[in-house]
Parts: sequence; C-alpha cells; structure tokens
Amino acid sequence: MKRIYLDHIAGTPLHPEVVEAMLPFLHEKFGNPQSLHSDGQQAAEAIQEAREKVAQLINAASSEIFFTASGSEANNFAIKGLALAHQKQGKHVVLSSVEHQSILNAAKFLEKLGFTFFHIPVDRFGKIDPEDVRKALTQETILVSIMLANGEVGTIEPLAEVAKICRSRDILLHTDAVNAVGNMPVDVKALGVDALSLAGNQFYGPKGSAALFIKKGKRILPFIDGGIQEGGRRAGTEDVPAIVGMGKAAEIAMQNMVSRVERMKDLRDSLIKRLPESIEHTILTGHPIQRLPYHASFCVEFVEGESMLLNLDMQGIASASGSSCTSRALKASHVLLAMGIDHTLAQSSLVFSLIDNTTPEDIDYLLEVFPPIIERLRKMSPLYTQYLEEKEK
Amino acid sequence: MKRIYLDHIAGTPLHPEVVEAMLPFLHEKFGNPQSLHSDGQQAAEAIQEAREKVAQLINAASSEIFFTASGSEANNFAIKGLALAHQKQGKHVVLSSVEHQSILNAAKFLEKLGFTFFHIPVDRFGKIDPEDVRKALTQETILVSIMLANGEVGTIEPLAEVAKICRSRDILLHTDAVNAVGNMPVDVKALGVDALSLAGNQFYGPKGSAALFIKKGKRILPFIDGGIQEGGRRAGTEDVPAIVGMGKAAEIAMQNMVSRVERMKDLRDSLIKRLPESIEHTILTGHPIQRLPYHASFCVEFVEGESMLLNLDMQGIASASGSSCTSRALKASHVLLAMGIDHTLAQSSLVFSLIDNTTPEDIDYLLEVFPPIIERLRKMSPLYTQYLEEKEK
Repeated sequence: MKRIYLDHIAGTPLHPEVVEAMLPFLHEKFGNPQSLHSDGQQAAEAIQEAREKVAQLINAASSEIFFTASGSEANNFAIKGLALAHQKQGKHVVLSSVEHQSILNAAKFLEKLGFTFFHIPVDRFGKIDPEDVRKALTQETILVSIMLANGEVGTIEPLAEVAKICRSRDILLHTDAVNAVGNMPVDVKALGVDALSLAGNQFYGPKGSAALFIKKGKRILPFIDGGIQEGGRRAGTEDVPAIVGMGKAAEIAMQNMVSRVERMKDLRDSLIKRLPESIEHTILTGHPIQRLPYHASFCVEFVEGESMLLNLDMQGIASASGSSCTSRALKASHVLLAMGIDHTLAQSSLVFSLIDNTTPEDIDYLLEVFPPIIERLRKMSPLYTQYLEEKEK
Repeated sequence: MKRIYLDHIAGTPLHPEVVEAMLPFLHEKFGNPQSLHSDGQQAAEAIQEAREKVAQLINAASSEIFFTASGSEANNFAIKGLALAHQKQGKHVVLSSVEHQSILNAAKFLEKLGFTFFHIPVDRFGKIDPEDVRKALTQETILVSIMLANGEVGTIEPLAEVAKICRSRDILLHTDAVNAVGNMPVDVKALGVDALSLAGNQFYGPKGSAALFIKKGKRILPFIDGGIQEGGRRAGTEDVPAIVGMGKAAEIAMQNMVSRVERMKDLRDSLIKRLPESIEHTILTGHPIQRLPYHASFCVEFVEGESMLLNLDMQGIASASGSSCTSRALKASHVLLAMGIDHTLAQSSLVFSLIDNTTPEDIDYLLEVFPPIIERLRKMSPLYTQYLEEKEK
C-alpha cells in the first residue's frame, strides 16, 4: 500500500540531497572538528559552512548559531541558560500557556530554583494578545518566551508586536520557532528576538540536528558544561553528519521558499475547506489564516483522536493527534484546553501536517477514506449515540 | 598520501556495517518513535532493539539505558541529575582530579548551587588510591564520580574497589567510561556502579550517539525537560539513525572482544617499547600496564605537542596532544599537571590512540617518520639548546 505521510510536525523525511551531503561524513570524513590535524580541520570547515547556511536561513550571523541535538534541547538551553545568566536582575519569566512541553517543563525546573512564571492566556484560536504580555511584565521580569507557531494547532503568534514591547522594556525575548523555521520566512532581525530555537528535522534535515540562535552580546549560561565546542556554551563532540545535513536542508529551504509556501497553503486550505464539508461536526482548531502553511488540525466530535489515527494508518495515512512529544501519554492537549476547548472535545483532536511531496491526489485520497472511518467509529461511539438521542428529542 | 588515523580518543571511524544499519533510517524509515502510526512504530522498535544491544554490551537491562547525544551530555546528565535528585541527603560530591572537563565543569555549575566537591589526587601514573576515596567521604557525601579510564593518559582506575567503598556507605557511584566501553570488557554489575557514561563514537558508532546507564531504582532528575522520551528523563526527538548505529556498533564490539583487545595491546605495547628507543627523552605518560588497550601517550621533551601533531599530520598521521574537547584551547592538560608533570613538560604531550584497522606497518611508518620530525623540531627548540648547553658543562 502507498504510504501518505501527513505528520510533518513529528518530523519530515530527509531531502535526498541532505542524505547525500551527510554520507561522506559517515564514511571517510569522520574527523572530530576539535582535532588539530587535517581530518579534524576538514570537519571543522564543514560545520562552519553549515553554521553559515543555518544563520542565513534566519538572517543571523554564523557566530550567533549554537548547534544542539533537538528542538527540546535548544528550548531547555534558552530558558535555563538565559534565566540563570540574568537571575541577578530578577527571577520572573513570562510564557504563553500553549508553549511546547520542553519550555513548560524547563520552567518547572527553574521554579524549584526560585523563579516564577506567568502564563499568558490564548484566545479560542490559540493566539495570545501582545497587550497581555505588556501587562504581565514586572520589575523582576528578565525573560519572555512566546512560540512563533504552534505545532498542535498551527497558529502563528504576533511575535513582532511582543518584541516591540520587550525591547522597550529591555527584556529578553526567546521564541520557539521549531515548527516554523524552514517552512515560512523567518527573520530574527525583523522579528526582533534575542533567542530562537529551530530544528533541522522540521525542514527535511536529519534528526539530531537543531540549533539555538542567540543574539550577539546576549549572555547565556552553557547548557552542557565541558569542552570548548560551540563557543564553550554546549560541550560535546559535534555531530558532524547531522550538522552538515541541517546546513544542506537550510540551503534547500531557502530556495523557492515563496513558491513552496504558496503551494503548501493551497493544499492546506483545500483540506481545511473540504474536510468539514465531508464530515459533519468537524471543527478546525487554531487560527483559520494565521497558521503554519503546512498545518491543518481539527476536532472530529464524538471520536477519539487515537482511534482515528490508527484507522487512518491502516489506510496508509500517517497523522497525529497532537504533539509527538506527548502522544504516547494520551492526555488531553494542554494547548486545546488553554484555547477553551473542553476535555472531551480535546480528545478528538487530529493533525494533518503536509510535507513538500504531498500532492493534491493525497488530499483527495484522505478525503475519500476518512469519512467512512468516521462513520464507522461514530457508530461505536456512546457519545454520538447520546448526541443523536438528544437531537431527536 | 595514505592517511594513518591514530586519534581514537577524538572519535573512531564508523564501522561499514554501522553505516549500512543507519542508512534505511536516513531514507524511508524516517518516522518519529513517539508517533502512534506504523512509521513511528517502526522507529520505536528500532531504538528498542538498539537499546537492548547497548545494554548487553555493558551487562545492563535495556530499561537502564538512556540515550544522549554525546559523552559530555551523559556526564552532565549524571552529575547534575544525580546530585540534584539527592541534595536533600547532602551536597558533597567526590571526584578525581583527572576527570573529563564535562565532569569538572558540571561540578562548577553545581558549586553555584551550594554543592562542594572534593578532588581525589592521582599518583604519577594518573591512578587514584581507593583509600583516598574512603577518607574523602563525609556524612554529606551523596555521589562519587571516578572515571573508568582516562582518555589523555590511558590509565584505568581501580573502580571496583571504589565501588565496594561506596556500596558499604550507600553512596552513589558514577563512572565516565566513554573511553573504555566497546574497547575492553565493561560490566556494570562486576564494577558495581550505579551510573555509567558511554559514547558510540568511541567504538566505531556514529557521532551524536551516547548513553547514560542508570541502575534500576536510582533516582535522577531529567537533564532535558519536556516530552516523554527516554522515560521522561531526556526529552527531544530521538536521533534514530544515531541510536541504531550505536546499537549496531555495540553488537560488533561484543564480537571477538577478547581477540580485538589482545591485538590492540600488542600494537600498543610495541609502540610503547619502541618509541622511547627511537627518540631519547621520551617519557610514557599514564600507567604502563593498567591502561586502555589502544592507548599510547608520551611526553617528548623539549618539543611542543602542537608542533609534533602538525608535523605528523603533514606525514599523513593523525594524532592528538590531549583531549579534543580542549585541544584548541592549547592549555596544559589538567590531567598531566595532576600527575605531577611540570607545566613545560605537559606542553610536550602526544597521544597515539589506535583503531581496529591500525596495522603493524602503520606503527613502523610512524616510527620511521617521527624521529626525524623530533630531530628537526628540537634543533629549533630553545629549551633543547639550553639542555645541551647545561649538559656540556
């Protein structure tokens, strides 16, 4: 059976040119970039080249890029490293309530060290109001972290406005841009952020490749202590093949960004329009327009996300019911709950996240096989039976 | 020119079968192990299989293995995670003075949080005395971390004896075994350790692959907070290709361990014997017998390590002057200084660390090209001129 992969948020397939770029570094070019001999020099040059490409993708300088092994690590590095480096000025941090677990749980770690966190609410589209950020700032606030785009509901946050507020108060701003970078234009200067997390496996680069952008001059504590790698801020032997792959992926992502995004948006909007037409009681989650180009997410009433996902899988379609970092926990998404969606409806969440080689035919196939699945599942759903009975009254 | 790679400590080349095992996960098997669909399931099974092989290599259970992206990360995870999880019982930690930077600098981070560290001295061979550990323990001691083998001088520490002392006092013992695992038999049960760091790129696995063993039942704080990966102890999308590669490397390392080690030791001992015969004023560093099978390290008096290394590189030989995590810092090694070697002599350090495909002919070639290099460098050395003048008096 043909597999149709609509789970971009869990990670993209590698671009064939990315694999090709990595291969020499799995074979003969295995040197350690810190070694002073030519094998090391070769590796050092390769990661510098990759650093420049990744920097270019977000309009940063290569010296502002610090490689990590995952978006979660970049987020931990940012939150813990920035907070601990500036704790003498205050111990108050502002977050949104729809941040990724790696932000929220890093915050919980810092709470044990005496930090306090304010969680900005979101509206029913998952969007924060920048004015709420302004109101949340105190004399003790040293850091604001608001994601650029949400992986579970696709909503893009008004980050540039938040940045203006932070800048006027001289407060650091970090953004988790893991789901955005490489899939839409992201410019750290235009956004006005001091730190930004990104991950290669969200734009056809390898797993194990990610980075934190830290604006020149901003202090941050190292996350992994040890050697002098990554400017002494993230110790450990550099994962050269992954870094080289991420660099290549960044280079590819910059090519035809505009046309790629337009094509994604067309497919996404077609799905967002047609799915609720094919299946009644289907609600789009997240913002209808200000959302990730590849992202379409829904609540399909009366049916559990996991059941839909597994039934779609049997038809060859890979999708998600929320963040893959919590999927196996099978808890209702904190993002949907923060948006005011009730607990029962939140359990019926489904995310279709498209990739570059998704075709209109893939969407047609999805819309062909999905309605009968829902019909079957609803027949077995006590919630649906109850709904029908109440409707008849 | 033929390249001869004698820089095992900076990382080994990948075994061809390791690359082969990784390739499907860079191509069609790109799923996220946390995804509930079949692409995810396939990846989840692959990392479970790798976890079992890595566990087997050190005689652990697969549930005791937590993958990380580097040995340095595993060391940070161990030191910070164990210390913070047990701080209510005390804030005193015992280390050796020859630990890797990732242990020593993680300790410096914890010092800011009120922990104190005692550094056990070493003898002129780089060896600790287990009795010194016993004497260093206080009522407040919660953790001891002593490396299994030193990457800079090759010395193997008497860890099993340290373990007996720690066990009798119910104090946690971690060991940095990054340079040892896969290159000599390592058995966590026989050693009696509670935590152990290992890295795939020290035994022909990929960069970006490493792990921390944590004995069942021992509490540790997560290092990367976030999702539920690695039992909630190390968040972030798993680097499936790297983990699969490490699993394969573990499997290969277990095959013919004894004969591989014997072969390495023969080559090593031949180099240890012949190099000082070919070049006068050459001193072996580290223990002459209780040392890593692949490791031969020297101080070559009157010549700087970096100059030797670069000259050898021009003859096609890759070597190191110390840990690659500090090599570009060009400071005298804290390991050599702790062994009582003076600052000047410590600058003349050189490490030849052999790999599985090192041949007797490679050693012959090294012993052919190295003496003329030293002769030339010494002619330019003010220290050597001074020595000769004083000798003539």
